[in-house]
Amino acid sequence: MSLEMAKKIAAYKAVDDHITDNLVVGIGSGSTIVYGVQRLAERVISENLNLICIPTSFQAKQLILDNGLILGELDRNPTIDVAIDGADECDVELNCIKGGGGCLLQEKIVASCAKTLIIVADHTKNSEYLTEKYKKIPIEVTPIAYIPIKNRIESLFGGDLKLRMGGSAKAGPIVTDNGNFILDWFFDGSPTTDFDGINREIMMIPGVVDTGLFIGMAKKAYFGMPDGSVIEKEI
Amino acid sequence: MSLEMAKKIAAYKAVDDHITDNLVVGIGSGSTIVYGVQRLAERVISENLNLICIPTSFQAKQLILDNGLILGELDRNPTIDVAIDGADECDVELNCIKGGGGCLLQEKIVASCAKTLIIVADHTKNSEYLTEKYKKIPIEVTPIAYIPIKNRIESLFGGDLKLRMGGSAKAGPIVTDNGNFILDWFFDGSPTTDFDGINREIMMIPGVVDTGLFIGMAKKAYFGMPDGSVIEKEI
Repeated sequence: MSLEMAKKIAAYKAVDDHITDNLVVGIGSGSTIVYGVQRLAERVISENLNLICIPTSFQAKQLILDNGLILGELDRNPTIDVAIDGADECDVELNCIKGGGGCLLQEKIVASCAKTLIIVADHTKNSEYLTEKYKKIPIEVTPIAYIPIKNRIESLFGGDLKLRMGGSAKAGPIVTDNGNFILDWFFDGSPTTDFDGINREIMMIPGVVDTGLFIGMAKKAYFGMPDGSVIEKEI
Repeated sequence: MSLEMAKKIAAYKAVDDHITDNLVVGIGSGSTIVYGVQRLAERVISENLNLICIPTSFQAKQLILDNGLILGELDRNPTIDVAIDGADECDVELNCIKGGGGCLLQEKIVASCAKTLIIVADHTKNSEYLTEKYKKIPIEVTPIAYIPIKNRIESLFGGDLKLRMGGSAKAGPIVTDNGNFILDWFFDGSPTTDFDGINREIMMIPGVVDTGLFIGMAKKAYFGMPDGSVIEKEI
């Protein structure tokens, strides 16, 4: 079974398990959530569900609109019943690294407003500990501060922070949906075993807007497996 | 002596005490720093000083340019020798509330890059404890998250957060130099005695970019007094 199919079965199962009528639903970003929104749209039509969808990015907003779902916003719907989002890596306690797609700030805002955060992913994202397989932590920063932040983190914790560039799509760095830069923090091995502590320290550095470390936020994760089954992990 | 004169004598003394040749100098924002930049410009000319000035806001950048000083930036000068900035209130340990002028994020970034942060102010900013006289704490937030953040802080700590509006200058909220909103946190009495702890908690709320609480950052403060003297406090 392809990775795409693994993403799809995980997303479908999560939507089927957690979405009922009259909910405010947080819509994540990334490749897996595309299937989740597909399934949401199918069920809205077949079951006539009344859902309000809160996006975590421009991509998520487009998915909501393209699939004919009702677009909400945090100003009107600051409390979200369930948010469904992907992850780049997810450990045994459901701590996650997110932000490979550059949407970590809005993802974390929406997650923080959600009563329940559900992670959907293929099996390659399922790890024992963070940085076991995914070897970077994205950090969203205010553009003017990216050099001092890079210097500070490298001096405090080691590793190598690189400004995420736009490649052939944009000269210079990518700019996030919220007007910030992304520093990708690379390291040999792992920078720590105390990701909660390191996240708290990094969050206090002026100019850091948010990090891709989602600590203690997710309640359940669905991983699509190569054999077509879905593994569920729950806190 | 007027408050303006009190600001001026504090700013002049701070510049005279801390500025020597060949320094990178952080330039604060607000009404008091205007006098500091005047004095810097006088001394650059009379003593032929070689200074690079790093702004904390658009206002500071204009002050640097208008006074013929050399404008630097954090990308090239991530380490600042001395930053001189105002404050809305400053306690006995030199913890400060800043951001009344809406420039707190860049001010805190520059302060965090400075080996020494000097506060200059008139005597009305000199307090025993924070919120003794200044009854709000500004918080800079990502625009989409202002309602969830307001709800979260009010529910955790009480008080009343108000989106800072542009008044006759701009319909709707002011937007900071970094594209964010300001929530002004008002309260009866004081929200806490543990401003370090409350600052750390608020900084972890997704969408909070920074707060006007500058805890443990300043090394020395100069307050211009009504009698023309300058009180110095040092940590």
